[in-house]
Amino acid sequence: MNKIVIEVMPKVEILDPQGKAILGALKRMGFNNFTEARQGKRFELTVDGEVTDEVLKAAHEAADKLLSNPVIEAVVNVSKMD
Amino acid sequence: MNKIVIEVMPKVEILDPQGKAILGALKRMGFNNFTEARQGKRFELTVDGEVTDEVLKAAHEAADKLLSNPVIEAVVNVSKMD
Repeated sequence: MNKIVIEVMPKVEILDPQGKAILGALKRMGFNNFTEARQGKRFELTVDGEVTDEVLKAAHEAADKLLSNPVIEAVVNVSKMD
Repeated sequence: MNKIVIEVMPKVEILDPQGKAILGALKRMGFNNFTEARQGKRFELTVDGEVTDEVLKAAHEAADKLLSNPVIEAVVNVSKMD
């Protein structure tokens, strides 16, 4: 089945407490290569049929209207999965 | 700054109630091209310096030990961000 992947991240200017907690845990576990961590969301939508331009446009619209909160989140990727 | 992206999804055999809720909302909103939706997580780790093989190995280890629950989730991608 064809799939579309949609990726949503907290905006750069928004504090990401989950990311901060992850960074703290990484450091406590001895992972010292990382200076920042941010957590977002990844969606996979299975498509009924081909991934046409129209379907991709619908996925973009769904990403903006349902899958992200535009005040605090940015849609960083909407694309056909390999 | 160099970044590593880590992506985690619920395993195929695991029920994903969030994904089911999203699919229901998509249908109610008139998006009828999609037959399944699944929700996972996307992490961005900022790296202090170059993304060497050693740093990527540490990111894989962090993905397995901290960022995913191996009983119900699969790490689907660990890679340097473009």
